[in-house]
Amino acid sequence: SSKRKITVAYGDGIGPEIMKATLNILEAAGAQLEYDVIEIGEQVYLKGITSGMEPKSFASLRETKVFLKSPITTPQGGGFKSLNVTTRKSFGLFANVRPCKAYSPFIKTHFPKTDLVIIRENEEDLYAGIEHRQTQEVYQTLKLISQPGSEKIIRYAFEYAKKYGRKKVTCMTKDNIMKLADGLFHKTFDEIAKEYPDIETDHKIIDIGSALIAERPEIFDVIVTLNLYGDIISDIAAQVTGSVGLGGSANVGEEVAMFEAIHGSAPDIAGMNIANPSGLLNGAIMMLVHIGQPEIAEKISNAWMKTLEDGIHTADIYQEGISSKKVGTQEFAQA
Amino acid sequence: SSKRKITVAYGDGIGPEIMKATLNILEAAGAQLEYDVIEIGEQVYLKGITSGMEPKSFASLRETKVFLKSPITTPQGGGFKSLNVTTRKSFGLFANVRPCKAYSPFIKTHFPKTDLVIIRENEEDLYAGIEHRQTQEVYQTLKLISQPGSEKIIRYAFEYAKKYGRKKVTCMTKDNIMKLADGLFHKTFDEIAKEYPDIETDHKIIDIGSALIAERPEIFDVIVTLNLYGDIISDIAAQVTGSVGLGGSANVGEEVAMFEAIHGSAPDIAGMNIANPSGLLNGAIMMLVHIGQPEIAEKISNAWMKTLEDGIHTADIYQEGISSKKVGTQEFAQA
Ligand SMILES: CC(C)[C@H](C(=O)O)[C@@H](O)C(=O)O
Ligand SMILES: CC(C)[C@H](C(=O)O)[C@@H](O)C(=O)O
Repeated sequence: SSKRKITVAYGDGIGPEIMKATLNILEAAGAQLEYDVIEIGEQVYLKGITSGMEPKSFASLRETKVFLKSPITTPQGGGFKSLNVTTRKSFGLFANVRPCKAYSPFIKTHFPKTDLVIIRENEEDLYAGIEHRQTQEVYQTLKLISQPGSEKIIRYAFEYAKKYGRKKVTCMTKDNIMKLADGLFHKTFDEIAKEYPDIETDHKIIDIGSALIAERPEIFDVIVTLNLYGDIISDIAAQVTGSVGLGGSANVGEEVAMFEAIHGSAPDIAGMNIANPSGLLNGAIMMLVHIGQPEIAEKISNAWMKTLEDGIHTADIYQEGISSKKVGTQEFAQA
Repeated sequence: SSKRKITVAYGDGIGPEIMKATLNILEAAGAQLEYDVIEIGEQVYLKGITSGMEPKSFASLRETKVFLKSPITTPQGGGFKSLNVTTRKSFGLFANVRPCKAYSPFIKTHFPKTDLVIIRENEEDLYAGIEHRQTQEVYQTLKLISQPGSEKIIRYAFEYAKKYGRKKVTCMTKDNIMKLADGLFHKTFDEIAKEYPDIETDHKIIDIGSALIAERPEIFDVIVTLNLYGDIISDIAAQVTGSVGLGGSANVGEEVAMFEAIHGSAPDIAGMNIANPSGLLNGAIMMLVHIGQPEIAEKISNAWMKTLEDGIHTADIYQEGISSKKVGTQEFAQA
C-alpha cells in the first residue's frame, strides 16, 4: 500500500479521547496513514518497566520511525523514568521544536503578534542524568555541553529558519556565569551564524531572555537554546500566548521523530469529552509535514483556524459573549 | 557618634546620579549614617583587578558589614569576574532577597495584585564556578547542592515569611529530572516545612513555576529556590510587575549584607539626570530595616509611594495623560 505506517499511542487520562479526535480528523482530511498501536504510560510503568516502554514498542519505533504520542501519567516514586526522556535518549531525538503562535482575538492573550519557534537542544546539559552523592550532605549533577551536540542543534535552527522563511535566530545562554559550557554554545552559534548571512542573529542572557519572552514575546522569531533553558522558556511562551492547551511539539532525531501535545494527561477531566484536542492535532500537523504530506497538513491547519474563527471552542477556550458555541472534544473535531 | 557606618559605592553609568539621589533622601529622612566610600566597577577592572574589588574595599566591608552598591559596568572579555558573584562568595551572602510588588495603577502591569518575594539561594548550584574542558569538544560544569546550604536558605525563607506575616512559601525545583540534587532541596523543604505548621507550603516544577510567574504572579507569596532558577524567575517577576526599574535587592550573609537595585548601569543614559533612582532607593529601604532603623525605612517608603500616587515620575514610568509630571532624577528625589 502507499500508506505511511506510523506508531501511535493513546496514553493516559484525556489521551485516548484526544487521539481518537485527532485520528478522525487525519482520516477525514485524506492523510495516507496506517497505525501500529503501542501501549505506553501508567499501565506499563506499573508492570515494573521503569523506562516506560516495552521492547516491542522500541521495535515499532525502529520500524516506523514516526511516533504520534498522547500524554501519559507517570506514577509517583518507584524510580520511574520520564518516557519522553527515554525516547529522546534511545533514539537520539536531539531537537525539540515548539512553535508558539498567538491566535488573537480567538484565543485570549496580551501579546497578539507573537509567532515564535523554540528549538531546544534535547539530549545534553543537565538532562544527561549524571548525578551522584559525594557525601551524605553533598550532591552533584553534571552539566555536559559538547561541540558536536551544540553544532547539530544550532545548524538545525538555522536550517529551520531558512526553510520556513524566518528572519532571525536568537541564542540564549548564561555564559556570563558558565563561561566554558555555555560559552561553547554561544561561540558555536556565532561561528555557524556566519554561514547564514541572510539571517539576523542575536544573543540574550537567559534571565533577561526569559523575562522578555514573558513580557515582549513578539520580538522573537526562532530561538535556539540549551536543554534546561528551553524547557523553561517553552512553558513561559506557551502560557503567555494562551497556547498551553493548543501547542504541538516535535522531538526530532536523524532517523526517528516523535510528535505530541505540550500539555499533560489531565486525569481530572478524563473521559468527559471536554478536553481540547488542538495540542495533539498541532503535533500531528507537524508530523504530516515531516513525512511528506504537507498539503494534508495545510488543509487540516486551515480547517482548524476556520473552526477557531467561527468561535467554536471546547470549554477551556470558550468565552461567554465572545465565542459562538461551546462543544465537546468529538464535536470540535467534527467541526 | 551614634551614626551607623556603611560602605557605599557609586558604580558606573547611571550609578553616581542615582546614588546621590538616594543618599539625599536618606539624609532628608533622618537616617543615622556615615559613609565609607569605595571604588568599584569598570575603572577597577581596567586596573587589572579581575575580581572587581580592591583589598581596601574588602577591608571596608569586613569593618562596616553593610554595603550599599550602585550598578557597575563589567568590561567585555579579559576574564573579569562578576563583582556580585565575588561579593556573594567572599562574604558568604547565601540569601538573595527580591521583593516584587505591583504599584498599579501608578505603574502599568497586567497583574495589579502581585506582591511576592523571591528568596534565592546565592552560593551553590551551577554558580559554584566549577567548570572544565574534558576534551577539545566536551565541556562540563558541576552543579553542587548541599544539605546545609539548602537548609540555611529554606529556613531563612520560612523565618522571613514568619517575620513579615506572609502566608505561603512555594519551593521550585526540577526534581523530576535531577532526582538527587533538586530532590535534596525539595526533601529539605518538606522537612523544614513541618516546623512551621502555620505557613502554607507548595512545590512547583520550575518550568511550570516560571510560566505561572509570567502569567499569574498574584498566586505567589514567598518563593524559595535554587540559585539559577532564582536568577531566571526574579527577572521574569520584575518584568511582569513593571518593576525592573523599581526593584531593590538584598544579598544577605551571616555577617555582611549588600543592598542594590536589580537593574544595570544603563551607560546610554548616564549623566543625563533622567534615570529612575527607585531601584536603589528600595534597596536602601531594605538596608535601613536590616540595620535597625525601620521607622526611617517606613517614612521613606511612604514618601516614595506618595510620589508615585501624585503621578510624579521619571521618563521611564511617565505616561502622557495619566501621570501628572515628568521630572529628572534629582527632582524625583526632591519630591
Ligand atoms: C516531563 C519532563 C521530563 C519534560 C522535560 O523536562 O523535558 C517536560 O517538562 C517537557 O518539557 O517535555
Ligand atoms: C550579573 C549576574 C552575574 C547576576 C547573576 O546571574 O546572579 C545577575 O543576573 C543577578 O541576577 O544578580
